[in-house]
Amino acid sequence: MTRVLPAIRFSKGHGTENDFVLVADPNAELALGADQVAALCDRRAGIGGDGLIRAVPASALDAGRDQDADWFMDYRNGDGSVAEMCGNGLRVFVAFLEHSGLVRLADGEQLRVGTRAGVKTVRREGDLYAADLGPWSVVGGEPAVSAGADARVTAAGLPPELPGLSIDVGNPHVVVALPDVDLLRGADLAGAPRVDPQPGNGTNVELVVPLHDATDREGHLAMRVHERGVGETRSCGTGAVAAVLAARAWAGERAPDVWQVDVPGGRLRVRTGAGQLLAGSWAELAGPAVVVADGHVLPSLAPVG
Amino acid sequence: MTRVLPAIRFSKGHGTENDFVLVADPNAELALGADQVAALCDRRAGIGGDGLIRAVPASALDAGRDQDADWFMDYRNGDGSVAEMCGNGLRVFVAFLEHSGLVRLADGEQLRVGTRAGVKTVRREGDLYAADLGPWSVVGGEPAVSAGADARVTAAGLPPELPGLSIDVGNPHVVVALPDVDLLRGADLAGAPRVDPQPGNGTNVELVVPLHDATDREGHLAMRVHERGVGETRSCGTGAVAAVLAARAWAGERAPDVWQVDVPGGRLRVRTGAGQLLAGSWAELAGPAVVVADGHVLPSLAPVG
Repeated sequence: MTRVLPAIRFSKGHGTENDFVLVADPNAELALGADQVAALCDRRAGIGGDGLIRAVPASALDAGRDQDADWFMDYRNGDGSVAEMCGNGLRVFVAFLEHSGLVRLADGEQLRVGTRAGVKTVRREGDLYAADLGPWSVVGGEPAVSAGADARVTAAGLPPELPGLSIDVGNPHVVVALPDVDLLRGADLAGAPRVDPQPGNGTNVELVVPLHDATDREGHLAMRVHERGVGETRSCGTGAVAAVLAARAWAGERAPDVWQVDVPGGRLRVRTGAGQLLAGSWAELAGPAVVVADGHVLPSLAPVG
Repeated sequence: MTRVLPAIRFSKGHGTENDFVLVADPNAELALGADQVAALCDRRAGIGGDGLIRAVPASALDAGRDQDADWFMDYRNGDGSVAEMCGNGLRVFVAFLEHSGLVRLADGEQLRVGTRAGVKTVRREGDLYAADLGPWSVVGGEPAVSAGADARVTAAGLPPELPGLSIDVGNPHVVVALPDVDLLRGADLAGAPRVDPQPGNGTNVELVVPLHDATDREGHLAMRVHERGVGETRSCGTGAVAAVLAARAWAGERAPDVWQVDVPGGRLRVRTGAGQLLAGSWAELAGPAVVVADGHVLPSLAPVG
């Protein structure tokens, strides 16, 4: 049997250059198979995106599911596989709902978004969207932050065996502090940095440079990231949170609660709960989100079996 | 002064997965600067494409320019720079004109397309488009094909110092024959192969495996390509032509005139003039071309200075 992609309408949008194909499904009637999602996200033969987001009103889903949510975010990876959640995707999801006229948020108003990792709230804040990521769903409880450097990281273009801090915020990260932005710029992240001891399932690696000084009310980091299994990316939401948790651990008790994190694709803001330095499991990720094009898919795109 | 991109309509299409943002400009009134083209071709912050193609009726251009052409193909590279021509782009250009209702070709009918490298004719042939690339505009005259292997190529995953044949078809290529497809599959083209002697301005490298046998009426190659300054790509039109010229040189006088070339993004067909093995400068490149989506750009995309 050959199924042909329906002539669906789509938008394309991004949050700090983490980009998505966005599809509204107000009646919960659009069943997109993994192969169809992969065809749509293919950057050369399709539309192109890091993932696909389908927007479904929570009321259109089975009774009892996500009853606390307004809309459900069906997030898929670019290869078509199902994903639990995506921090940058949450912002773009709400920007897309506003762009499509399906939701209108006043400044400061928030929307409850159902995800496969639970209900998250996203608040409009001027031109930004702030996603309350809530408690991390870490296997075994709270975010794991070791007391000091527990890993050695070697990346091309940097001195070897730099000390790194392992942080698990649902997915694994190793955060390495560099003394200046020239060193950050010179790092070659085309290949995966070598981490010793090597985590069993690999790890994301964040290189960060603190840009604030002791008198600043807010923290400020410049960051580049190598994502496990992907390569260097323009932005990584959980990486920004891990970087801030590491920087707070290094800074001690007087560390700020609010941090700007400059990534190649733009600027993110991370807030974590006061007084919850190591044990704290709550974080908010804020940043821009923009829809850049509307269109419809033609039947010529990838009839799939 | 801040210019905002006009809310232009676009299509996205590809030929053997060499993909383009396509814009119709029937009145020759759309001036797209390099920064705007780069914003549109940005794969994460924009629409995404290897390049942008603007379609302008030749009659709308200044009198005397391209008077032998029906339409002018304004081709730009993804970084916004002006390019002379693109073999895969020619096919997608005509498919786009047909899709948009601006041109209708009967089977076998051809269109004259003005490019910065002269007027090319593109013929519809069932589902394929065949572009007559005409004489190569090689500096110094005709395509340069050396008599035998004149270069040594070392690529990761392959035995070192493989013999290669240098061919210049307007841009430089070195073609390496491999004995079987397993070896072709195993080659690692993430980095540029090392070529000895190293051409001054670098070179494209094609790895090819002959798939036909002596009794076949047509030639058949499997090919992978590393494009100079780009990396491995899904398809390369001039690379396919260079590969066929090399294969004809190896095959001798009884070499077929028609060749299928399987690239990662699909299948191309190359025809070269009979009896013009080394001196021949004429070639036709045929293959599929498809438009996969229509849309319009939103004002939020990249206001540029």
